[in-house]
Amino acid sequence: MQMGKVIGNVWATRKEEGLEGLKLLIVQPVNSAGKPIRTQLVAADRIGAGIGDDVLVTSGGSSRYIMKEKSLPIDAVIVGIIDSTEVERGGLNESSDWND
Amino acid sequence: MQMGKVIGNVWATRKEEGLEGLKLLIVQPVNSAGKPIRTQLVAADRIGAGIGDDVLVTSGGSSRYIMKEKSLPIDAVIVGIIDSTEVERGGLNESSDWND
Amino acid sequence: MQMGKVIGNVWATRKEEGLEGLKLLIVQPVNSAGKPIRTQLVAADRIGAGIGDDVLVTSGGSSRYIMKEKSLPIDAVIVGIIDSTEVERGGLNESSDWND
Amino acid sequence: MQMGKVIGNVWATRKEEGLEGLKLLIVQPVNSAGKPIRTQLVAADRIGAGIGDDVLVTSGGSSRYIMKEKSLPIDAVIVGIIDSTEVERGGLNESSDWND
Amino acid sequence: MQMGKVIGNVWATRKEEGLEGLKLLIVQPVNSAGKPIRTQLVAADRIGAGIGDDVLVTSGGSSRYIMKEKSLPIDAVIVGIIDSTEVERGGLNESSDWND
Repeated sequence: MQMGKVIGNVWATRKEEGLEGLKLLIVQPVNSAGKPIRTQLVAADRIGAGIGDDVLVTSGGSSRYIMKEKSLPIDAVIVGIIDSTEVERGGLNESSDWND
Repeated sequence: MQMGKVIGNVWATRKEEGLEGLKLLIVQPVNSAGKPIRTQLVAADRIGAGIGDDVLVTSGGSSRYIMKEKSLPIDAVIVGIIDSTEVERGGLNESSDWND
Repeated sequence: MQMGKVIGNVWATRKEEGLEGLKLLIVQPVNSAGKPIRTQLVAADRIGAGIGDDVLVTSGGSSRYIMKEKSLPIDAVIVGIIDSTEVERGGLNESSDWND
Repeated sequence: MQMGKVIGNVWATRKEEGLEGLKLLIVQPVNSAGKPIRTQLVAADRIGAGIGDDVLVTSGGSSRYIMKEKSLPIDAVIVGIIDSTEVERGGLNESSDWND
Repeated sequence: MQMGKVIGNVWATRKEEGLEGLKLLIVQPVNSAGKPIRTQLVAADRIGAGIGDDVLVTSGGSSRYIMKEKSLPIDAVIVGIIDSTEVERGGLNESSDWND
């Protein structure tokens, strides 16, 4: 999973059938320090996340498994709203790569 | 999912059987500001997207799930045509990474 | 899918059973301008592609779906030989990122 | 799989049903020299890994296969705690890419 | 698939059940010129690869398909040991990107 912050909404009227009724949120992935990493994605949401929330996102085929029928053509879903994180500082320095 | 803009078409006469009759569009992923991110991909389209449209693209194995039979050898499909987006500015600055 | 150019062949005598008899080609992904993007990959080919051909490559689990039995341990397959592309210039500038 | 170091914990009260009771750890991928590579991810853990452990992480749909029922909406799981590694130095220099 | 060079071994005593008895090798992906690309990964091996071998690696969910039962929680497997490659030089210049 990846951590991210919800930054927006997307609306699409014309869409594949499987997406009907799904809320779609724009998420900016962040690291444990809250720094943006990688690039934005759009995730389905069924647990009531909103703009500003820190969330956990599951990507790829596993995101279909939020539904029993597993037939949604989606590749990202918000699976949790983060309450808190605890990160060990020191020891391993976090990557200082530009894409961290 | 990722947001993108349709920038072109691809035609292939010789192809795997599963691709017969599928429209294939070249999509440039973009972020919520409309800025190109990552690299171009080719997505199947069944909902009538065309050049210039802002679209939502599902990637990976989930893209097969637009069809009941789920046997298409495709890894990207346009699942929605974006009407509008709403993005919270401020608070979290968007990544200024070159690849955002 | 991604566009690419076939640049070579790979031969492996010792291999997993599922790969027996599959032609394996080295592909350099390219964008719609023919510029190399990302890094080389090796794709299975059943449609007769050869060095110099512009091709469409499906990656990930969907690449197994070229076979009914779907049991091949492959993650990339050539699904089409590109005849032509049509790309809208202007409007959206293509990413000038180094990895585009 | 990728090698990584566990650097933290994540807690989420509101979440998709499939995640109930799963421990979630923040992992920083590292290469064989212990140098951070790529960006942080959050992995489920069932084998008792903790902060500071060097671990092996399986990503994508395969991470569901730690459970018989295979219905977890997760895309990363810790599958092993690394005891030791042996790396051949010389011959092939490791990539000096910034993202290695 | 991707080409790579086996550079090391990983041992883990505490691990998910599905990994019991699987040999795990550290692989540095390389391009057709033998130049390191991307970042190291750990792949399961059943065909007897060893340090210094040039190999083909299948990633993602397809890597489970080396086993009939398909229940391994792995996301990378060595599917072939490369005997030789033939690469067309000229025409298309290889990407000179740092990550090629």
